Amino acid sequence: MRAIDLNSDLGESFGAWSMGDDAAVLEIVSSANVACGFHAGDPAGILRTLEAAAARGVAIGAHVAYPDLVGFGRRNMDVPSDQLTADVIYQIGALQGLARSVGTRVSYVKPHGALYNTIAGDQRQAAAVIQALLRIDPQLKLVCLANSPLIGWATEAGLSCVAEAFADRAYTAEGTLVSRSKPGAVLHDPELIAQRMLRLVRDGVIEAENGSLINLQADSICVHGDNQDAVAIARNLKNCLLEAGITIRAFT
Amino acid sequence: MRAIDLNSDLGESFGAWSMGDDAAVLEIVSSANVACGFHAGDPAGILRTLEAAAARGVAIGAHVAYPDLVGFGRRNMDVPSDQLTADVIYQIGALQGLARSVGTRVSYVKPHGALYNTIAGDQRQAAAVIQALLRIDPQLKLVCLANSPLIGWATEAGLSCVAEAFADRAYTAEGTLVSRSKPGAVLHDPELIAQRMLRLVRDGVIEAENGSLINLQADSICVHGDNQDAVAIARNLKNCLLEAGITIRAFT
Amino acid sequence: MRAIDLNSDLGESFGAWSMGDDAAVLEIVSSANVACGFHAGDPAGILRTLEAAAARGVAIGAHVAYPDLVGFGRRNMDVPSDQLTADVIYQIGALQGLARSVGTRVSYVKPHGALYNTIAGDQRQAAAVIQALLRIDPQLKLVCLANSPLIGWATEAGLSCVAEAFADRAYTAEGTLVSRSKPGAVLHDPELIAQRMLRLVRDGVIEAENGSLINLQADSICVHGDNQDAVAIARNLKNCLLEAGITIRAFT
Amino acid sequence: MRAIDLNSDLGESFGAWSMGDDAAVLEIVSSANVACGFHAGDPAGILRTLEAAAARGVAIGAHVAYPDLVGFGRRNMDVPSDQLTADVIYQIGALQGLARSVGTRVSYVKPHGALYNTIAGDQRQAAAVIQALLRIDPQLKLVCLANSPLIGWATEAGLSCVAEAFADRAYTAEGTLVSRSKPGAVLHDPELIAQRMLRLVRDGVIEAENGSLINLQADSICVHGDNQDAVAIARNLKNCLLEAGITIRAFT
Repeated sequence: MRAIDLNSDLGESFGAWSMGDDAAVLEIVSSANVACGFHAGDPAGILRTLEAAAARGVAIGAHVAYPDLVGFGRRNMDVPSDQLTADVIYQIGALQGLARSVGTRVSYVKPHGALYNTIAGDQRQAAAVIQALLRIDPQLKLVCLANSPLIGWATEAGLSCVAEAFADRAYTAEGTLVSRSKPGAVLHDPELIAQRMLRLVRDGVIEAENGSLINLQADSICVHGDNQDAVAIARNLKNCLLEAGITIRAFT
Repeated sequence: MRAIDLNSDLGESFGAWSMGDDAAVLEIVSSANVACGFHAGDPAGILRTLEAAAARGVAIGAHVAYPDLVGFGRRNMDVPSDQLTADVIYQIGALQGLARSVGTRVSYVKPHGALYNTIAGDQRQAAAVIQALLRIDPQLKLVCLANSPLIGWATEAGLSCVAEAFADRAYTAEGTLVSRSKPGAVLHDPELIAQRMLRLVRDGVIEAENGSLINLQADSICVHGDNQDAVAIARNLKNCLLEAGITIRAFT
Repeated sequence: MRAIDLNSDLGESFGAWSMGDDAAVLEIVSSANVACGFHAGDPAGILRTLEAAAARGVAIGAHVAYPDLVGFGRRNMDVPSDQLTADVIYQIGALQGLARSVGTRVSYVKPHGALYNTIAGDQRQAAAVIQALLRIDPQLKLVCLANSPLIGWATEAGLSCVAEAFADRAYTAEGTLVSRSKPGAVLHDPELIAQRMLRLVRDGVIEAENGSLINLQADSICVHGDNQDAVAIARNLKNCLLEAGITIRAFT
Repeated sequence: MRAIDLNSDLGESFGAWSMGDDAAVLEIVSSANVACGFHAGDPAGILRTLEAAAARGVAIGAHVAYPDLVGFGRRNMDVPSDQLTADVIYQIGALQGLARSVGTRVSYVKPHGALYNTIAGDQRQAAAVIQALLRIDPQLKLVCLANSPLIGWATEAGLSCVAEAFADRAYTAEGTLVSRSKPGAVLHDPELIAQRMLRLVRDGVIEAENGSLINLQADSICVHGDNQDAVAIARNLKNCLLEAGITIRAFT
């Protein structure tokens, strides 16, 4: 009897601009990575997402990012360590305050976009983010790319890590994500995606782009909700897992 | 034996731009209104201010503001109530997170600039700010302009209010501040300022611009630290109060 | 043989967030009010809108706004006159630069949202905006709410004004817009809207909410493109005007 | 009879925060690199700087930067080329608009901070900036680090380059700047600085950190004005050059 967490990015609207179908995604996932205002999310919109997540019993994570609204946090920034640590604490604190005000709480942190990719392998910036969690609340779990060096650094520092796989991404034979710039990096077939993740949850393996099988220990699977196809893929994945007797539940 | 609180605005630097002499002011005041990033204050700078305040045993308040960095929170904004409530919760939460990370905590909220002036008399916006405190932590005290309608509204809603007087401002015979646009609105004589505040603390009265005496119940006196003259005025005021046997301590 | 201009707001996407169907709207209108980055619009997105507008031969206006991205420029702000003048010049200049780089030019200015509504009747802020046009280029036309005091102020200052009617809005017997907060303020029936505007163009009159006929001199009609219904209303209006032998062309 | 340009960064205040002594620096330099709002500079403040520069007959350059106010444009950002080109056009256009409104004009572009350093050697980002100038106005000169690859790229693209030396920086034997992280990278002795620059202007050589002489072709010398020492260094340098019969004048 296995269980797995499904997580997705939410609260990414900003002021008059909406993004994603938060209501639909909250029916599917067990964990919500909620934007904290640096790459997306205005306070009133974040609050609505938190209320909806709390009403559904979905776990809440702080989706912290570089301070880059116009770039949606997707552009690498060379932020000095003390600034990065403070930026991450600020974002977690803001989300904790909003969460508290609707009777829920933040249980984990998932860095967003360029910050996520950078700290998977950049030890300086990783250390700055780890420091932030240790200083504001060492009980916060850190969502890390499965198989990445970050897991070792964070664990050594005393944090609990959540290893994450991506439902719709191809993997290299070394267990890393195939770069988005390469053909075939992103998968679109709902059934293929569901079967790959089912195998991952059951057997801890995933087929790499060259056909070899690689070991991948994952505590959570990331799904998307920015368009109807993505929501359909996520819903199909969830149903497939449930039918196979796998429980969907937050890792927290 | 009377006691009074001295408060001042701190943490108002932003990135490469510095403002105020936080170190000098922390030697004088018992309460620090710390910027939360909306009108001033970047996370790394706020953190340094919080560390310094904590080291001095100075109480910390969230200096919440309109989202107007270029206007330094001094321009009135007609923010809808749900947005204003969420903005204030966000700022308080962010400061709480930063404070927790340096082993201290936020004990009060003081709205800044245009927001401070507006909610002193605008019931809709006042209600939005009051809601924010009630929802994130009803134990947070709210610093209000002495004699303003806000005190009644906040008290009725269940909040503890701190009535505030301004050391360097002239008062009308009705007990309100003389508008900054009028001559004589701001006082500059350190000795006069100290004597007025001493009388206020001892007798609960202050001389209005027309020479009449008005009753003013104040729990805290606001001093400034943006330039050397302001710091000198504040230091002189503190010494004068101490020599008169009055204790300077946070209201919290 | 009458002619009229149809204008709409474009370039209001921001970074990863999209808004409106610019391509569809550019098939309909003769003038595009292009966001300048203060309420919406990032430089790369604005550039794409300008290229598309230039390719269609659509006239370009600077859709200047308060510096309020999270509020989409819809919240009143009490901006001092010198700051407002400089803000408007900055936005016009930025759009002129982007327009020049794709071989087109800015021919008019239309204030956006709260700024539009405010300067229709607030003489101080109106004067600040008028100053901006006079200083950067007095040949720029200013789009003003039809029947508003702004037209007099701007004309007196030497600017050419474009009086604007709103296709989907109800009018009071005094010739002003019915406030959006009142029922019936916004019209939704495409045919009714087209007939009202046809009458306006032909006869210079529009039926007010109380059934009376009011005189309204309009050089341009504002249509919307934020959703499919709005686009359909605009397309129907255009077809109706064309069938009645009215030319759609920019006022410039 | 030689002539040289002295340039400095101006207009770097932002809202309530002031930076640098623009009035003092304008007495010294022949070219002002004026902030455009992305790393510093609000429209009203920029306008005041432009008026002062115009009154002194100082040439005006657009000091374009990454969109990073809190980082003052000093943090590397991996901005995609189309966004970078549009960002630079936007900033130049905005400054051109402000300049036109006070009767002056922008004659050159100097990238700021991290963008300056990056494009000195990164061909992709350099190409994006070069594109911006070509598209908005190919007559704009580009200020480039002397001896950097950028000069070749920009010249080949058809731009006029201005090679720049730094008065207070040490140089490596290869003719590049000694990294700020190394001891001795920044010079503080006014007389030494003046003698080095005098030699540079007269003979086209500068002494490297290892004592060797390197050739450095410079059309402009960058001086600073952020503090009193910097202003004194700049003033002394100017006087020394003047006494040696060298003319200080803009390269434009």
